[in-house]
Amino acid sequence: MKEQIWTQIEAVRQQSPLVHSITNYVVMNNTANALLAVGASPIMAHAHPEMADMVSIAGALVINIGTLDEYWVKSMMLAIEQANVSGKPWVLDPVGAGATLYRDEVLQQILVQKPSIIRGNASEILALANKNTTQTKGVDSTNASTDAVLAAKQLNEEFGSVVCISGAIDIIVGQGKIIKLSNGHPLMAKVTGMGCTATALTGAFVAVNPHGQFWASVSAMALMGVAGQIAANLAKGPASLQLHFLDTLYQLTQQDFLQYIQVDEYE
Amino acid sequence: MKEQIWTQIEAVRQQSPLVHSITNYVVMNNTANALLAVGASPIMAHAHPEMADMVSIAGALVINIGTLDEYWVKSMMLAIEQANVSGKPWVLDPVGAGATLYRDEVLQQILVQKPSIIRGNASEILALANKNTTQTKGVDSTNASTDAVLAAKQLNEEFGSVVCISGAIDIIVGQGKIIKLSNGHPLMAKVTGMGCTATALTGAFVAVNPHGQFWASVSAMALMGVAGQIAANLAKGPASLQLHFLDTLYQLTQQDFLQYIQVDEYE
Amino acid sequence: MKEQIWTQIEAVRQQSPLVHSITNYVVMNNTANALLAVGASPIMAHAHPEMADMVSIAGALVINIGTLDEYWVKSMMLAIEQANVSGKPWVLDPVGAGATLYRDEVLQQILVQKPSIIRGNASEILALANKNTTQTKGVDSTNASTDAVLAAKQLNEEFGSVVCISGAIDIIVGQGKIIKLSNGHPLMAKVTGMGCTATALTGAFVAVNPHGQFWASVSAMALMGVAGQIAANLAKGPASLQLHFLDTLYQLTQQDFLQYIQVDEYE
Repeated sequence: MKEQIWTQIEAVRQQSPLVHSITNYVVMNNTANALLAVGASPIMAHAHPEMADMVSIAGALVINIGTLDEYWVKSMMLAIEQANVSGKPWVLDPVGAGATLYRDEVLQQILVQKPSIIRGNASEILALANKNTTQTKGVDSTNASTDAVLAAKQLNEEFGSVVCISGAIDIIVGQGKIIKLSNGHPLMAKVTGMGCTATALTGAFVAVNPHGQFWASVSAMALMGVAGQIAANLAKGPASLQLHFLDTLYQLTQQDFLQYIQVDEYE
Repeated sequence: MKEQIWTQIEAVRQQSPLVHSITNYVVMNNTANALLAVGASPIMAHAHPEMADMVSIAGALVINIGTLDEYWVKSMMLAIEQANVSGKPWVLDPVGAGATLYRDEVLQQILVQKPSIIRGNASEILALANKNTTQTKGVDSTNASTDAVLAAKQLNEEFGSVVCISGAIDIIVGQGKIIKLSNGHPLMAKVTGMGCTATALTGAFVAVNPHGQFWASVSAMALMGVAGQIAANLAKGPASLQLHFLDTLYQLTQQDFLQYIQVDEYE
Repeated sequence: MKEQIWTQIEAVRQQSPLVHSITNYVVMNNTANALLAVGASPIMAHAHPEMADMVSIAGALVINIGTLDEYWVKSMMLAIEQANVSGKPWVLDPVGAGATLYRDEVLQQILVQKPSIIRGNASEILALANKNTTQTKGVDSTNASTDAVLAAKQLNEEFGSVVCISGAIDIIVGQGKIIKLSNGHPLMAKVTGMGCTATALTGAFVAVNPHGQFWASVSAMALMGVAGQIAANLAKGPASLQLHFLDTLYQLTQQDFLQYIQVDEYE
């Protein structure tokens, strides 16, 4: 399994897929840099008149609602429509699900379009499945990944999406399987948009493996976790973690990856 | 006084307040990172249909007009209205005040809503009080902090806001007191959005001390100045200053803070 | 020639020109930091009611269509109109030219306003001159700079613009001359927005030399290439390259510049 994941990482480096992101303003720069660091080619665009054309040249689409508004929601719906028509995989990041009624309404509208993959923290996945009993605290999770496994299964059954719950442990649910990843470092939560970066990288992996959403999601999260862990060991705080993280995405060797990666079936 | 300020820094770290920022595109990433580094939880959102909900779950609101337009000004007014209705503190950063007529008109509309705290450079504070005799040069100050003390007093009297003039020396005016902070480093002016970061951190401090705007403002500026000074000593240029600054916000110890901080009554 | 270019670099440091950028969300932070690092003063604004005022106080205007939409295109047209009326130089970055029909239509609308300088990668310059025979891959070039020299000449003749093709080799075409720069490093292509940064710096150089577009363009690209090369030597990956690049822009000495710079007439 570990060698299989590495094969995916090499496929991204060699094929350099074009990933079209409609994402939030806060993370555009660092997610574009993360995509470049793993070997992908990022494009960010949201103008209604070019959504169909842009999706057509991309290998995958990333939808992140972090700083949504009415214009951008329309951009997202136009891009998703084109992705579905042309059979392109697309990934949803439900940033801040549960924080406001508007976010939840938009997310329901997006969900029925059946995202290939959903990646969120536990609070967001619970909110998406209408299962959260605690108030979301903005964009940071107040739940553990394990709390959201049932919600992830429900979303997978209802919409056919592979669902990734990221956190101290990452759990990926889909295609009758559940995988658990135990890499990463708590300091990663002190860098804005690490979750958004995970979603962006998932877009790159599913672009080179459009019918393998499950392993694309596992591979992206595995790379995130290993690079984050190596970077945290070198870092003196969140800003140097971000720097070493991007450098590590670019430089990571098979040997280091296989030495660090902790991937298991979830009980 | 120095120990009191440190108590505020620890309160932010322990309470991890949610800070809702409607801010400019240029600084969203680094101000979100600064908020995380001091222990706060940032959210950035501007969609009209969610402004009231978002302000309701936040501990404080930050309004920064750097890249304003008609939609965003409406977002700001909706958020400010909700903050005032629900008694939430809010901080204004009048970026580029005096640069264009449109900015000045928007700022007058915001000012009458009585911000809890205003933080700007000397040129911006002068423009806000209609006292600038020189043309603003975009977003960078062409005046010294001391030039703007009378303007700050006037704004404090007229709108009840605590007013912070940041610069080589930071001066905080309000509640019958004037405090002067002498930390920081000239290289900080070569990093975009250091002022915006100061405003964002002020939001975190006033969120944990909603009726203590004056000391919230002093504490935020004290932390900025000390962290900036330590970072400048480690830096080889503006980009490494930004990196060390964020790492220092995260790591700063009471001992280092008390050793560096220079805070005095203003004559 | 090399000493002449250094003179331009010193002029930017001493005159600290105000550069108004209407640019894309992805690169706003790092291009603002690059402008500060070379000694310029950046402002980013796009609200229609302030476009004329903002251009009036700026020394140059930068138009970058990376994340365009209908509102922003109107902002660009208003700013360009004011720049042309008041004789201010302006620089066009045709990000993603050829990727979508909408981009190409907007670019034709902008081109007839006669930009002082155009800076793009080879694929973008070819698309702009309707000469690309291969599909653009988003925002990354799939052509070598030398492929686009004829296209650059055509654009120069038709619109009077100095045209800079950036890539492994940078080629600047205009005023009857063609200059070739051979600095830089392949790792620069792994940092998002390095091309956008080149365009932003071109704005700073043309602001201090408004009737010398050709040498402004050469000087900006020379500084980019030398700083990128020095930074790449210090870097362990794309994030540390970005950091050292900005620090180097700030610190670069005449001695280092003259030692590294490789500038020649193009055959």
